[in-house]
Amino acid sequence: MDDVMADATGQIINFYERDYGVRLTRQDLQNLHQREDALAAHREKIRKYPFEKGFFRTLLPLQDSQQVMEALNLKYEVFIVSAAVEFPLSLHEKLEWLEEHFAFLHWKQFVFCGNKAVVHGDIMIDDLGRNLDSFTGQKILFTAPHNHHVRQNGYTRVDSWLQVASHLL
Amino acid sequence: MDDVMADATGQIINFYERDYGVRLTRQDLQNLHQREDALAAHREKIRKYPFEKGFFRTLLPLQDSQQVMEALNLKYEVFIVSAAVEFPLSLHEKLEWLEEHFAFLHWKQFVFCGNKAVVHGDIMIDDLGRNLDSFTGQKILFTAPHNHHVRQNGYTRVDSWLQVASHLL
Repeated sequence: MDDVMADATGQIINFYERDYGVRLTRQDLQNLHQREDALAAHREKIRKYPFEKGFFRTLLPLQDSQQVMEALNLKYEVFIVSAAVEFPLSLHEKLEWLEEHFAFLHWKQFVFCGNKAVVHGDIMIDDLGRNLDSFTGQKILFTAPHNHHVRQNGYTRVDSWLQVASHLL
Repeated sequence: MDDVMADATGQIINFYERDYGVRLTRQDLQNLHQREDALAAHREKIRKYPFEKGFFRTLLPLQDSQQVMEALNLKYEVFIVSAAVEFPLSLHEKLEWLEEHFAFLHWKQFVFCGNKAVVHGDIMIDDLGRNLDSFTGQKILFTAPHNHHVRQNGYTRVDSWLQVASHLL
Protein backbone atom coordinates (compact mmCIF):
# COMPACT_ATOMS: atom_id res chain seq x y z
CA MET A 1 0.00 0.00 0.00
CA ASP A 2 2.44 2.69 1.18
CA ASP A 3 4.28 4.36 -1.68
CA VAL A 4 2.66 1.96 -4.15
CA MET A 5 -1.09 2.59 -3.82
CA ALA A 6 -0.93 5.41 -1.24
CA ASP A 7 1.28 8.49 -1.30
CA ALA A 8 3.04 8.03 2.04
CA THR A 9 5.98 10.16 0.89
CA GLY A 10 3.62 13.06 0.11
CA GLN A 11 2.14 12.76 3.62
CA ILE A 12 5.60 12.92 5.20
CA ILE A 13 6.32 16.07 3.20
CA ASN A 14 3.06 17.58 4.45
CA PHE A 15 3.67 16.63 8.10
CA TYR A 16 7.24 17.97 7.96
CA GLU A 17 6.04 21.29 6.58
CA ARG A 18 3.42 21.46 9.36
CA ASP A 19 6.10 20.89 12.03
CA TYR A 20 9.09 22.81 10.60
CA GLY A 21 7.64 25.22 8.05
CA VAL A 22 9.83 23.84 5.29
CA ARG A 23 8.50 21.98 2.27
CA LEU A 24 10.87 19.13 1.40
CA THR A 25 11.21 17.73 -2.09
CA ARG A 26 11.04 14.05 -2.93
CA GLN A 27 14.74 14.33 -3.76
CA ASP A 28 15.39 15.49 -0.15
CA LEU A 29 13.69 12.34 1.15
CA GLN A 30 15.59 10.21 -1.32
CA ASN A 31 18.80 11.50 0.24
CA LEU A 32 17.60 11.31 3.84
CA HIS A 33 19.56 8.24 4.83
CA GLN A 34 22.83 9.83 3.69
CA ARG A 35 22.53 13.44 4.82
CA GLU A 36 24.27 14.96 7.84
CA ASP A 37 22.35 18.21 7.88
CA ALA A 38 19.31 19.85 9.46
CA LEU A 39 17.01 17.32 7.84
CA ALA A 40 19.01 14.44 9.32
CA ALA A 41 18.52 15.98 12.76
CA HIS A 42 14.78 15.43 12.31
CA ARG A 43 15.14 11.93 10.94
CA GLU A 44 13.79 10.23 14.07
CA LYS A 45 10.73 12.46 14.09
CA ILE A 46 10.07 11.72 10.44
CA ARG A 47 10.29 8.01 11.15
CA LYS A 48 7.63 8.40 13.84
CA TYR A 49 5.06 10.03 11.54
CA PRO A 50 3.51 6.66 10.54
CA PHE A 51 2.73 6.00 14.22
CA GLU A 52 0.69 9.23 14.38
CA LYS A 53 -3.10 8.89 14.41
CA GLY A 54 -4.58 9.74 11.01
CA PHE A 55 -1.36 9.32 9.04
CA PHE A 56 -2.65 6.39 6.97
CA ARG A 57 -6.32 7.36 6.90
CA THR A 58 -5.66 10.64 5.07
CA LEU A 59 -3.15 9.49 2.46
CA LEU A 60 -3.92 10.28 -1.17
CA PRO A 61 -4.02 7.43 -3.71
CA LEU A 62 -1.05 7.51 -6.06
CA GLN A 63 -1.75 8.79 -9.55
CA ASP A 64 -3.67 6.29 -11.76
CA SER A 65 -3.53 3.62 -9.01
CA GLN A 66 -7.33 3.35 -8.74
CA GLN A 67 -8.04 3.04 -12.46
CA VAL A 68 -5.23 0.54 -13.12
CA MET A 69 -6.07 -1.53 -10.04
CA GLU A 70 -9.70 -1.71 -11.09
CA ALA A 71 -8.62 -3.11 -14.46
CA LEU A 72 -6.12 -5.51 -12.84
CA ASN A 73 -8.89 -6.72 -10.55
CA LEU A 74 -10.92 -7.83 -13.57
CA LYS A 75 -8.03 -9.74 -15.13
CA TYR A 76 -6.22 -11.18 -12.07
CA GLU A 77 -6.96 -12.54 -8.60
CA VAL A 78 -5.71 -9.48 -6.68
CA PHE A 79 -4.64 -9.36 -3.03
CA ILE A 80 -3.61 -6.19 -1.21
CA VAL A 81 -0.80 -7.20 1.14
CA SER A 82 0.33 -4.55 3.58
CA ALA A 83 2.96 -4.70 6.31
CA ALA A 84 0.59 -2.92 8.66
CA VAL A 85 1.07 -4.73 11.94
CA GLU A 86 4.12 -2.61 12.84
CA PHE A 87 1.83 0.41 13.21
CA PRO A 88 -1.11 -0.73 15.38
CA LEU A 89 -3.25 2.31 14.62
CA SER A 90 -2.83 1.71 10.92
CA LEU A 91 -4.85 -1.52 10.78
CA HIS A 92 -8.26 0.08 11.02
CA GLU A 93 -7.17 3.19 9.13
CA LYS A 94 -5.88 1.13 6.22
CA LEU A 95 -9.05 -0.91 6.08
CA GLU A 96 -11.20 2.26 5.99
CA TRP A 97 -8.86 3.81 3.42
CA LEU A 98 -9.18 0.82 1.08
CA GLU A 99 -12.96 0.84 1.47
CA GLU A 100 -13.03 4.53 0.55
CA HIS A 101 -10.55 4.68 -2.32
CA PHE A 102 -10.68 1.12 -3.70
CA ALA A 103 -14.35 0.35 -3.10
CA PHE A 104 -14.38 -2.19 -5.95
CA LEU A 105 -12.15 -4.50 -3.84
CA HIS A 106 -13.65 -6.88 -1.26
CA TRP A 107 -12.28 -7.27 2.28
CA LYS A 108 -11.51 -10.89 1.41
CA GLN A 109 -8.71 -9.51 -0.78
CA PHE A 110 -6.91 -7.74 2.09
CA VAL A 111 -3.92 -9.10 4.01
CA PHE A 112 -2.29 -7.15 6.86
CA CYS A 113 0.89 -8.80 7.99
CA GLY A 114 4.19 -8.22 9.73
CA ASN A 115 6.27 -10.16 7.23
CA LYS A 116 5.32 -10.69 3.61
CA ALA A 117 7.38 -13.90 3.37
CA VAL A 118 4.24 -15.80 4.40
CA VAL A 119 2.29 -14.83 1.26
CA HIS A 120 2.60 -16.55 -2.07
CA GLY A 121 1.37 -15.72 -5.56
CA ASP A 122 2.43 -15.22 -9.15
CA ILE A 123 3.28 -11.49 -9.26
CA MET A 124 4.21 -9.04 -6.47
CA ILE A 125 4.37 -5.25 -6.86
CA ASP A 126 6.26 -3.69 -3.93
CA ASP A 127 8.48 -0.74 -3.05
CA LEU A 128 10.85 -2.76 -0.81
CA GLY A 129 13.50 -5.19 -1.97
CA ARG A 130 13.20 -7.23 1.22
CA ASN A 131 9.56 -8.02 0.43
CA LEU A 132 10.32 -8.97 -3.17
CA ASP A 133 13.33 -11.08 -2.19
CA SER A 134 11.26 -13.57 -0.18
CA PHE A 135 8.69 -13.88 -2.98
CA THR A 136 8.94 -16.75 -5.44
CA GLY A 137 6.94 -15.27 -8.34
CA GLN A 138 7.56 -12.31 -10.67
CA LYS A 139 8.94 -9.31 -8.75
CA ILE A 140 8.00 -5.73 -9.72
CA LEU A 141 9.74 -2.88 -7.87
CA PHE A 142 7.63 0.29 -7.71
CA THR A 143 9.95 3.31 -7.67
CA ALA A 144 9.91 5.35 -4.44
CA PRO A 145 12.38 7.83 -2.87
CA HIS A 146 13.80 5.11 -0.60
CA ASN A 147 14.50 2.60 -3.39
CA HIS A 148 16.22 4.70 -6.06
CA HIS A 149 19.55 3.15 -5.05
CA VAL A 150 18.26 -0.46 -5.10
CA ARG A 151 19.87 -2.66 -7.75
CA GLN A 152 17.38 -4.44 -9.97
CA ASN A 153 18.59 -7.97 -9.39
CA GLY A 154 15.64 -9.98 -10.61
CA TYR A 155 13.19 -7.09 -10.35
CA THR A 156 11.28 -5.30 -13.07
CA ARG A 157 11.26 -1.61 -12.08
CA VAL A 158 8.19 0.54 -12.75
CA ASP A 159 7.92 4.28 -12.11
CA SER A 160 4.15 4.69 -12.36
CA TRP A 161 0.83 2.87 -12.53
CA LEU A 162 0.73 3.47 -16.28
CA GLN A 163 3.90 1.39 -16.49
CA VAL A 164 2.22 -1.29 -14.35
CA ALA A 165 -0.66 -1.25 -16.84
CA SER A 166 1.63 -1.63 -19.81
CA HIS A 167 3.34 -4.63 -18.18
CA LEU A 168 0.26 -6.43 -16.90
CA LEU A 169 -2.79 -5.37 -18.92
CA MET B 1 -7.02 -17.68 16.44
CA ASP B 2 -10.76 -18.15 17.10
CA ASP B 3 -11.59 -21.56 18.52
CA VAL B 4 -7.95 -22.63 18.12
CA MET B 5 -5.98 -20.21 20.31
CA ALA B 6 -8.92 -18.20 21.72
CA ASP B 7 -12.14 -19.54 23.20
CA ALA B 8 -14.64 -17.81 20.91
CA THR B 9 -17.27 -20.46 21.64
CA GLY B 10 -16.98 -19.76 25.36
CA GLN B 11 -17.49 -16.05 24.69
CA ILE B 12 -20.65 -16.74 22.66
CA ILE B 13 -21.99 -18.83 25.56
CA ASN B 14 -21.28 -15.94 27.94
CA PHE B 15 -22.87 -13.29 25.69
CA TYR B 16 -25.95 -15.48 25.14
CA GLU B 17 -26.40 -15.94 28.87
CA ARG B 18 -26.06 -12.15 29.35
CA ASP B 19 -28.80 -11.50 26.74
CA TYR B 20 -31.21 -14.42 27.36
CA GLY B 21 -30.41 -15.70 30.85
CA VAL B 22 -29.77 -19.21 29.57
CA ARG B 23 -26.37 -20.90 29.67
CA LEU B 24 -25.91 -22.93 26.49
CA THR B 25 -23.69 -25.98 26.32
CA ARG B 26 -21.06 -26.54 23.66
CA GLN B 27 -23.30 -29.34 22.40
CA ASP B 28 -26.10 -26.77 21.88
CA LEU B 29 -23.79 -24.70 19.68
CA GLN B 30 -22.66 -27.80 17.83
CA ASN B 31 -26.30 -28.38 16.87
CA LEU B 32 -27.08 -24.75 16.14
CA HIS B 33 -27.11 -25.05 12.37
CA GLN B 34 -29.66 -27.88 12.50
CA ARG B 35 -32.08 -26.79 15.22
CA GLU B 36 -35.54 -25.32 14.65
CA ASP B 37 -36.17 -24.20 18.20
CA ALA B 38 -35.81 -21.18 20.48
CA LEU B 39 -32.04 -21.17 20.00
CA ALA B 40 -32.42 -21.09 16.23
CA ALA B 41 -34.59 -18.00 16.60
CA HIS B 42 -31.58 -16.22 18.08
CA ARG B 43 -29.18 -17.53 15.48
CA GLU B 44 -28.76 -14.18 13.70
CA LYS B 45 -28.02 -12.42 16.97
CA ILE B 46 -25.42 -15.03 17.87
CA ARG B 47 -23.77 -14.54 14.50
CA LYS B 48 -23.50 -10.82 15.20
CA TYR B 49 -21.64 -11.23 18.51
CA PRO B 50 -18.20 -11.13 16.81
CA PHE B 51 -19.04 -7.66 15.47
CA GLU B 52 -19.61 -6.38 19.02
CA LYS B 53 -16.89 -4.18 20.53
CA GLY B 54 -14.78 -6.12 23.02
CA PHE B 55 -15.75 -9.58 21.79
CA PHE B 56 -12.23 -10.51 20.66
CA ARG B 57 -10.30 -8.47 23.23
CA THR B 58 -11.76 -10.37 26.19
CA LEU B 59 -11.54 -13.95 24.91
CA LEU B 60 -9.75 -16.48 27.08
CA PRO B 61 -6.85 -18.47 25.64
CA LEU B 62 -7.76 -22.11 25.04
CA GLN B 63 -6.38 -24.57 27.56
CA ASP B 64 -2.63 -25.25 27.13
CA SER B 65 -2.47 -23.06 24.00
CA GLN B 66 0.09 -20.66 25.48
CA GLN B 67 2.50 -23.29 26.76
CA VAL B 68 2.38 -25.43 23.62
CA MET B 69 2.66 -22.41 21.31
CA GLU B 70 5.70 -21.18 23.23
CA ALA B 71 7.37 -24.54 22.66
CA LEU B 72 6.32 -24.64 18.98
CA ASN B 73 7.78 -21.15 18.56
CA LEU B 74 11.20 -22.45 19.60
CA LYS B 75 11.10 -25.37 17.17
CA TYR B 76 9.26 -23.89 14.14
CA GLU B 77 8.89 -20.60 12.26
CA VAL B 78 5.38 -19.79 13.55
CA PHE B 79 2.87 -17.41 11.96
CA ILE B 80 -0.50 -16.54 13.48
CA VAL B 81 -2.92 -16.23 10.56
CA SER B 82 -6.35 -14.89 11.42
CA ALA B 83 -9.32 -14.17 9.18
CA ALA B 84 -9.85 -10.89 10.99
CA VAL B 85 -10.69 -8.47 8.22
CA GLU B 86 -14.36 -9.50 8.21
CA PHE B 87 -14.74 -7.90 11.63
CA PRO B 88 -13.15 -4.42 11.40
CA LEU B 89 -13.11 -3.86 15.16
CA SER B 90 -11.29 -7.12 15.65
CA LEU B 91 -8.02 -6.05 14.02
CA HIS B 92 -6.76 -3.90 16.86
CA GLU B 93 -8.40 -6.11 19.50
CA LYS B 94 -6.70 -9.22 18.15
CA LEU B 95 -3.35 -7.49 18.03
CA GLU B 96 -3.68 -6.37 21.67
CA TRP B 97 -4.92 -9.83 22.66
CA LEU B 98 -1.88 -11.53 21.13
CA GLU B 99 0.45 -9.04 22.80
CA GLU B 100 -1.19 -9.79 26.16
CA HIS B 101 -1.57 -13.56 26.02
CA PHE B 102 1.21 -14.58 23.62
CA ALA B 103 3.84 -11.99 24.54
CA PHE B 104 6.65 -14.28 23.38
CA LEU B 105 5.49 -13.81 19.77
CA HIS B 106 6.62 -10.82 17.69
CA TRP B 107 4.25 -8.70 15.58
CA LYS B 108 6.24 -9.82 12.53
CA GLN B 109 4.61 -13.23 13.05
CA PHE B 110 1.02 -11.93 12.71
CA VAL B 111 -1.11 -12.06 9.56
CA PHE B 112 -4.67 -10.69 9.47
CA CYS B 113 -6.38 -11.57 6.24
CA GLY B 114 -9.74 -12.04 4.60
CA ASN B 115 -8.83 -15.27 2.82
CA LYS B 116 -6.17 -17.69 4.02
CA ALA B 117 -5.58 -19.03 0.48
CA VAL B 118 -2.87 -16.38 0.09
CA VAL B 119 -0.64 -17.82 2.83
CA HIS B 120 1.72 -20.72 2.35
CA GLY B 121 3.70 -22.88 4.73
CA ASP B 122 4.41 -26.44 5.80
CA ILE B 123 1.76 -27.04 8.49
CA MET B 124 -1.58 -25.31 9.15
CA ILE B 125 -3.68 -25.76 12.30
CA ASP B 126 -7.23 -24.47 11.74
CA ASP B 127 -10.83 -25.04 12.79
CA LEU B 128 -12.31 -24.56 9.30
CA GLY B 129 -12.14 -27.00 6.42
CA ARG B 130 -12.28 -24.19 3.85
CA ASN B 131 -9.02 -22.75 5.20
CA LEU B 132 -7.28 -26.11 5.23
CA ASP B 133 -8.54 -27.04 1.75
CA SER B 134 -6.67 -24.17 0.05
CA PHE B 135 -3.46 -24.98 1.92
CA THR B 136 -0.81 -27.12 0.25
CA GLY B 137 1.04 -28.35 3.36
CA GLN B 138 0.04 -30.65 6.24
CA LYS B 139 -3.52 -29.91 7.43
CA ILE B 140 -4.48 -30.18 11.11
CA LEU B 141 -8.15 -29.70 12.01
CA PHE B 142 -8.63 -28.37 15.55
CA THR B 143 -11.93 -29.70 16.91
CA ALA B 144 -14.60 -27.05 17.56
CA PRO B 145 -18.42 -27.21 17.92
CA HIS B 146 -18.88 -26.15 14.28
CA ASN B 147 -16.59 -28.82 12.79
CA HIS B 148 -17.67 -32.00 14.57
CA HIS B 149 -19.48 -33.07 11.41
CA VAL B 150 -16.53 -32.36 9.08
CA ARG B 151 -15.10 -35.43 7.37
CA GLN B 152 -11.34 -35.79 7.82
CA ASN B 153 -10.40 -35.98 4.15
CA GLY B 154 -6.70 -35.28 4.29
CA TYR B 155 -6.86 -33.68 7.74
CA THR B 156 -5.31 -34.82 10.98
CA ARG B 157 -7.88 -34.03 13.69
CA VAL B 158 -6.75 -32.83 17.13
CA ASP B 159 -9.03 -32.19 20.12
CA SER B 160 -6.62 -30.24 22.31
CA TRP B 161 -3.28 -28.45 22.45
CA LEU B 162 -1.77 -31.46 24.21
CA GLN B 163 -2.59 -33.44 21.07
CA VAL B 164 -0.95 -30.69 18.98
CA ALA B 165 2.12 -31.07 21.17
CA SER B 166 2.21 -34.83 20.74
CA HIS B 167 2.04 -34.44 16.94
CA LEU B 168 4.52 -31.60 16.51
CA LEU B 169 6.89 -31.52 19.49
